[in-house]
Amino acid sequence: MIKNSFLILAITLGTSAVAQTTEPDSEFIKRMYQKALGEQQGYSWLGNLCEEVGARLAGSEGDAKAVKWAFETLDTLGYDKVFRQQVDVRHWERGTETAEFISKEERRRLNITALGGSISTPGGDNGDGLSGEVIEIKNREDLYSKSSMLAGKIVFFNEPMDPWLINTGSAYGKAGWQRWGGASEAAKLGAMAVIVRSLTHRLDDFPHTGAMTYEEGVKKIPAAAISTNDAEWLSKKLKTNPLGRVKLTLGSRDIGRKNSANVIAEWTGSERPDEIILVGGHLDSWDLGTGAQDDGAGVAHAMHAVWLLKSLGYTPRHTIRIVLFANEEFGLDGAKKYAKEGLGPNRKHVLCVESDGGSGPPRGFSLPKIIHEKRPELIVSLDGLLARYGCREWSQGGSGADVSQITDKGVLLCGYRGDSQRYFDYHHTAQDNIESVHPRELELGSASIASFLYFFDQNL
Amino acid sequence: MIKNSFLILAITLGTSAVAQTTEPDSEFIKRMYQKALGEQQGYSWLGNLCEEVGARLAGSEGDAKAVKWAFETLDTLGYDKVFRQQVDVRHWERGTETAEFISKEERRRLNITALGGSISTPGGDNGDGLSGEVIEIKNREDLYSKSSMLAGKIVFFNEPMDPWLINTGSAYGKAGWQRWGGASEAAKLGAMAVIVRSLTHRLDDFPHTGAMTYEEGVKKIPAAAISTNDAEWLSKKLKTNPLGRVKLTLGSRDIGRKNSANVIAEWTGSERPDEIILVGGHLDSWDLGTGAQDDGAGVAHAMHAVWLLKSLGYTPRHTIRIVLFANEEFGLDGAKKYAKEGLGPNRKHVLCVESDGGSGPPRGFSLPKIIHEKRPELIVSLDGLLARYGCREWSQGGSGADVSQITDKGVLLCGYRGDSQRYFDYHHTAQDNIESVHPRELELGSASIASFLYFFDQNL
Repeated sequence: MIKNSFLILAITLGTSAVAQTTEPDSEFIKRMYQKALGEQQGYSWLGNLCEEVGARLAGSEGDAKAVKWAFETLDTLGYDKVFRQQVDVRHWERGTETAEFISKEERRRLNITALGGSISTPGGDNGDGLSGEVIEIKNREDLYSKSSMLAGKIVFFNEPMDPWLINTGSAYGKAGWQRWGGASEAAKLGAMAVIVRSLTHRLDDFPHTGAMTYEEGVKKIPAAAISTNDAEWLSKKLKTNPLGRVKLTLGSRDIGRKNSANVIAEWTGSERPDEIILVGGHLDSWDLGTGAQDDGAGVAHAMHAVWLLKSLGYTPRHTIRIVLFANEEFGLDGAKKYAKEGLGPNRKHVLCVESDGGSGPPRGFSLPKIIHEKRPELIVSLDGLLARYGCREWSQGGSGADVSQITDKGVLLCGYRGDSQRYFDYHHTAQDNIESVHPRELELGSASIASFLYFFDQNL
Repeated sequence: MIKNSFLILAITLGTSAVAQTTEPDSEFIKRMYQKALGEQQGYSWLGNLCEEVGARLAGSEGDAKAVKWAFETLDTLGYDKVFRQQVDVRHWERGTETAEFISKEERRRLNITALGGSISTPGGDNGDGLSGEVIEIKNREDLYSKSSMLAGKIVFFNEPMDPWLINTGSAYGKAGWQRWGGASEAAKLGAMAVIVRSLTHRLDDFPHTGAMTYEEGVKKIPAAAISTNDAEWLSKKLKTNPLGRVKLTLGSRDIGRKNSANVIAEWTGSERPDEIILVGGHLDSWDLGTGAQDDGAGVAHAMHAVWLLKSLGYTPRHTIRIVLFANEEFGLDGAKKYAKEGLGPNRKHVLCVESDGGSGPPRGFSLPKIIHEKRPELIVSLDGLLARYGCREWSQGGSGADVSQITDKGVLLCGYRGDSQRYFDYHHTAQDNIESVHPRELELGSASIASFLYFFDQNL
């Protein structure tokens, strides 16, 4: 109890200390939130990206349109340099996709979609697909215990996302093995195809696509996601009707490499122009929806955060870069190119922050271990400034996938964290559209990221 | 900087102190969250309340059905006492409601709804309504400056909710004067009716009802809410066409007093049975939707929070009461009756917590001033236990309206606070239905309230 009282005393002192040293900061931060909520410029840009550009799978026409849109939009805003960095991206296309459960008693259409990277069923769009008995696999152990039963079968991976985990991203990570590697695991045991339960907590009819990979040297077999409602239905059906078959047709195929680009805007710093603070998201999306959550929200966040600073007359000490990465979804091509190309001699990234978790209301930021361990006073100050806007979570580690490719010495890799509960309701589906975005929640994110950039620009 | 380092040190010490002293607590709390998220019993109850019972305006058939449903549902759960406390409630009914903008050039239907408590236009449902020129009032100052122009006119109150306020409840409070008292303010200046901009940040076609009051001794005039889209349209139209008229018909009327009831479940405490910890919400709703957010969520939270404790085998030290209040919306009849009736000799409420802010993901709880000032160590412990579930905001003051009627000496009045951004999108509209509720967000709330009850049961 003594320790607790001590803490409260310290908090009281600490808070007033923060308030005293950062009063001008907090006023500027308040103005950024007001501007964001009043004008909703980020939401407006996101509307354009979703509705005028639309879906933008890496290498597609939509992707090229997105690059053009981002370049042209940023180019009107008066930054010192706006440019496209060419990126060679993998391009894959979805074709016909159908699945049907067939037994003596019934035929029933299943809501499925090809996983990103899947080969087609035999003959592709014009073929007859494939048909087989289905074996349900409930978890990794179940896969091992049924390993002798899978030859010539369609493996139905049906491990739900763990409802007990509070952060839905953790549940996504835990169940993700089925989608990422399930096809090769099943192929090693002789399976002819896999159907994977969609990665979402929600029970609905929308299949969730997403990247999968084939292990080298293992036979490639077709892989599709099935909606959670149909996964539940199929699981139940197989209990009473284990000999029912699924007929699956996928026309998906790799097209080869295509051109795309990272879109970059640079705003030169007044004191440390060779030290870059980067804020980013990824411009590509899946093809089913229009990528409002993944990662249109991150694109809008990055564009709007910097615009809030600029339009309010801020002079950055460091150079601030907006980077909208190409092809995150299909292998991080843009991020790899960006990191490899580097900044040229005597320039380095000092801090990078990515938003790639949707438009949920602010919860906080992930920060690198070194800040937690060596500069905890920065967290206290951030918390003092941003708590009133909902930012209270300062987790350790885990930036966005794109910025994690950047390895400049000493670079601080951070991630924006909005509330995670709704993100996977839409993620990688035909429902990932502007309607899923709450304007104020999005803009609270833009202003939180602007404040975060501002804070570190002042404190690095 | 020294002070900040000191704080961090203290936080480190403080956290480990909390962790050491409450380890068993945090394990039990974790189990409650898991059970809530895994079973979603609160969401299931809320589904029943919204879809089987439906709208439940105080004194209506739906209200009686809700009382029956709540009593019967609670009565199956093994509490020591489940009973109805009769409450005499005001009953008002909506009738026909139409509005049309009419000028030489055009006629256009406006989306309006009577404010709760409004009288009808002349002749009620069967009358011809009224028609008049419209004067827009943008804020209080505008009302004063136009005071000489309002005689015989329809006053159109059009002050939007302030987008700059982070908490939407604050913006609701700030703009609420138009709805609560606008009719009498306008009537004093000779107006014939009022139309009030709906209280929401969202631009859409749904008018938001809600209670209004007539000042004693002032002429009663009809009062309706108009959707935000139509408020924007009308405002624009009046600029170019100030002589356009609105024709308004409202059939609404007071029916008189009807019977309703507070529904109460009591679970007797093992150590301090005469000290009551109360958790509540209100059972009545507006008539337009089915009251999922207001306050079905609070009903589900209260019922589920206590059920989580009970179904996991907890033995409460204090007596825990679930109270589902009658007629919050139309004058707090249930809360007033409950407070007046009291608990009988030698019994008292020690803590009351209400959920009446919807189903948003947890942000924290409001706590009374005395805890902030005299027992800050409780806040540190709560934060230590619940931060990982999103509860980090421990604001001062402001419980729910119902429990605020309870004045037992020393009682601690608290309120659950979910994220506020989406609440007023649905509040008091035809859209306040189960579809607006995110199951996991609701259940995180149930478990947070269960944890809060548990914490205070252990610490009071």
